[in-house]
Amino acid sequence: MRLDLDLPAGLDLIVDPDVLAGLSHDDAEWAPYGTALAAVRPTNTAEVRRVVAACAARRIPIVPRGAGTGLSGGANAVDGAMILDLSRMNRIVEIDAENMTATVQPGVVNDDLKAAVAAHGLWYPPDPASAPWSTIGGNVSTNAGGLCCLKYGVTRDYVLGLEAVVGGPAGEYGTAVRLGRRTTKGVSGYDLAGLFTGSEGTFGVITEVTLRLRPARREAPRTVVGAFGSVVAAGEAVAAITRAGLLPAALELLDRTCLRAVEDWKHLGLADDAAALLLAQLDTPGLAGDEEATAVADVFRTAGALWSEQSTDEVEAEALFAARRLAYPALERLGPVLTEDVCVPRSRVPEMLSSIERIADRNGITIATIAHAGDGNLHPLILAPAGDDSARQAAQAAFEEILTAAIAMGGTVTGEHGVGLLKRAGMRQELSAGVLAMQVAVKQTLDPLNLFNPGKVVG
Amino acid sequence: MRLDLDLPAGLDLIVDPDVLAGLSHDDAEWAPYGTALAAVRPTNTAEVRRVVAACAARRIPIVPRGAGTGLSGGANAVDGAMILDLSRMNRIVEIDAENMTATVQPGVVNDDLKAAVAAHGLWYPPDPASAPWSTIGGNVSTNAGGLCCLKYGVTRDYVLGLEAVVGGPAGEYGTAVRLGRRTTKGVSGYDLAGLFTGSEGTFGVITEVTLRLRPARREAPRTVVGAFGSVVAAGEAVAAITRAGLLPAALELLDRTCLRAVEDWKHLGLADDAAALLLAQLDTPGLAGDEEATAVADVFRTAGALWSEQSTDEVEAEALFAARRLAYPALERLGPVLTEDVCVPRSRVPEMLSSIERIADRNGITIATIAHAGDGNLHPLILAPAGDDSARQAAQAAFEEILTAAIAMGGTVTGEHGVGLLKRAGMRQELSAGVLAMQVAVKQTLDPLNLFNPGKVVG
Repeated sequence: MRLDLDLPAGLDLIVDPDVLAGLSHDDAEWAPYGTALAAVRPTNTAEVRRVVAACAARRIPIVPRGAGTGLSGGANAVDGAMILDLSRMNRIVEIDAENMTATVQPGVVNDDLKAAVAAHGLWYPPDPASAPWSTIGGNVSTNAGGLCCLKYGVTRDYVLGLEAVVGGPAGEYGTAVRLGRRTTKGVSGYDLAGLFTGSEGTFGVITEVTLRLRPARREAPRTVVGAFGSVVAAGEAVAAITRAGLLPAALELLDRTCLRAVEDWKHLGLADDAAALLLAQLDTPGLAGDEEATAVADVFRTAGALWSEQSTDEVEAEALFAARRLAYPALERLGPVLTEDVCVPRSRVPEMLSSIERIADRNGITIATIAHAGDGNLHPLILAPAGDDSARQAAQAAFEEILTAAIAMGGTVTGEHGVGLLKRAGMRQELSAGVLAMQVAVKQTLDPLNLFNPGKVVG
Repeated sequence: MRLDLDLPAGLDLIVDPDVLAGLSHDDAEWAPYGTALAAVRPTNTAEVRRVVAACAARRIPIVPRGAGTGLSGGANAVDGAMILDLSRMNRIVEIDAENMTATVQPGVVNDDLKAAVAAHGLWYPPDPASAPWSTIGGNVSTNAGGLCCLKYGVTRDYVLGLEAVVGGPAGEYGTAVRLGRRTTKGVSGYDLAGLFTGSEGTFGVITEVTLRLRPARREAPRTVVGAFGSVVAAGEAVAAITRAGLLPAALELLDRTCLRAVEDWKHLGLADDAAALLLAQLDTPGLAGDEEATAVADVFRTAGALWSEQSTDEVEAEALFAARRLAYPALERLGPVLTEDVCVPRSRVPEMLSSIERIADRNGITIATIAHAGDGNLHPLILAPAGDDSARQAAQAAFEEILTAAIAMGGTVTGEHGVGLLKRAGMRQELSAGVLAMQVAVKQTLDPLNLFNPGKVVG
């Protein structure tokens, strides 16, 4: 079946309903998705160009996807869409060690890139918890964050340039353009590479990305753990870290529910007697790093930690961060998880954590919280037993209440997961009518036929 | 005289031709500028809104300016324009030490902000050489860089959010919008704050900026100096630094002409027997920083330095960096200086320096080079005796040849000064027709009447 589309000869059109269904959504719980027309798995830019041109000729919407690990529904299909599965465009095109850059196809998995550049003594810092599975294309499209953002920034800070297949002002749909640059600095024209970063595939299909790298860290970071009697007390400690002028590479919070879920699944032998743990990672090299680790442990104690210690055991430290990474899948094993992603000013973290507790109580549900606490980026995980409709409704109500609370604290409805489908209402609440109109106008300008991932972000 | 404009009562309209002429251009040599209608010096957003609305009603173009230290003509008046001098909007609205942010009006001078946040144990890294005079509004509008970009990024990396007075999709001209956020992370909608950064006032007037800060550095950085027999040899050492996995906070190059001009002016007692000096600053704290400084000195020697030493004398180290900052004004004392701002991949720095030497020879002119060498960002300063028309033409020819050479090496025509007027032809050479069309389309969307700084960037 060719659907009368003018596609490249070697490119199979996937129309099997089961396969299509699997490709029609990401990991966002209860985010709606439609019935796609078909899917393709291109391996190069030329094929993407042909597919986009063919779809445009028939006004078929195009929904790009990477690994489908998104948590906002940004990769969910709309009815009649062509799914552009980019997971086979997974070639590392170039690692330029002399200039500390890497150029990759969008389907390269984050951890694969990390491993490849590590072999050259280099480091790609952005580390979303999905790094073992999520792709650079998806990371760029959502401007993914992760654990080390406080000190090292987000994906946006590493995107120098990209290639995208677009339509509209640049030419016919199916035109490839190169945005941005390969150099460290550059201000030649508007920052369209930056604009595409975080645009969730709504301006075009990213087919190549040039990323900035850093020299590899020379030694393993120190880990400091603090156990607290409440999540709010842990939040107070986070604020105290900033006040002390300390800049950890990561500062993560895990509550008891998360710890237990991981322990029940993986049996890592974690302490789970506290209401919340804070995990700090300090990567300043040498004695200065040791001093910073000691200072963090002191701040934890002064802020009322039940106990606090510097982990001298690398295996144990790794287990703790593994627990952080495994918290989401561990909870997902237990039933549907609605994942929040609010970000508030760091000083409001304790208040936001209190607020989340109140919202959970009010709605009679369990909310487990993991957080990139140092960034003020909280992931309350709203749990609901499978098949329980009233629990689902309570979870969805809590979801919206948390967004409203974050906005009231000067925060945002999405720190790193993107707007997708689930945060569209929240975004409309957060941004002014004028700003929303600017967003819509930019989308209409760059995608006049509204073919690229329609309905997402501003849809 | 009110020019029939509906302006706020307290706002004086400046129409004195001499004052207007002084406000009608920046520091870009030989960049054309027109005759402005008038100028105003608003002190708050409400006044800017009124001025923009009044100008729009009469279709009067609006040219915003800060301190006028730009080097591309981005703040130059067009005929009949209203100059919006924002230098009196110089209030630091808030320093939020707990969240490591500062919110400022656009007329705040970079060094004044640095001093104010230093009192809170904080640091605003972007440090263009113009930092003692240039304003945050100008820095944001050009996405200014500086010396510490290699390790700490450019202005863009510090802009969290901003307020701008706009027109078009957001509403009538004179509408104020808040773009971006106050939080460390945030992906709620397209990155319009990022898009405005570096847009040179062509989308609207920036009236407030919220900036990310970092903790102050705990100790003075180490300085390493290397003297080289040729600028190309110094360029080779720059490439070797990257290969060694070293990440200095600054890595600057100064050639003999620059050093002598500073010495003749300021008598700092600098060595000027070498063809080029490299100045590296290492700010990793403690023993690790000492080790890095030693490693840099070793790389300099291995790369063929005449001599290389770690400066143990803070006064001497400061004098060397002062020389770097003073190079441009020192040369400007001698006559017109046409300032280049190309950026090439770091590994091509030696080749680009050779190319600059050949271009100088071919055109029979003197080019003094200062460079943020670690960024690959070179500022060849093209000298021409005042009043010598053929020298001016030779300088202008060399200017365009250097742009072409940089593009051929995978570089960009402007690393940090902006397109303004002087780099418009270079930008058209650098970017594809498709990308230029996208740039124009975005400008037309956000400023449909083409009133905001018309003719700049894409004009």
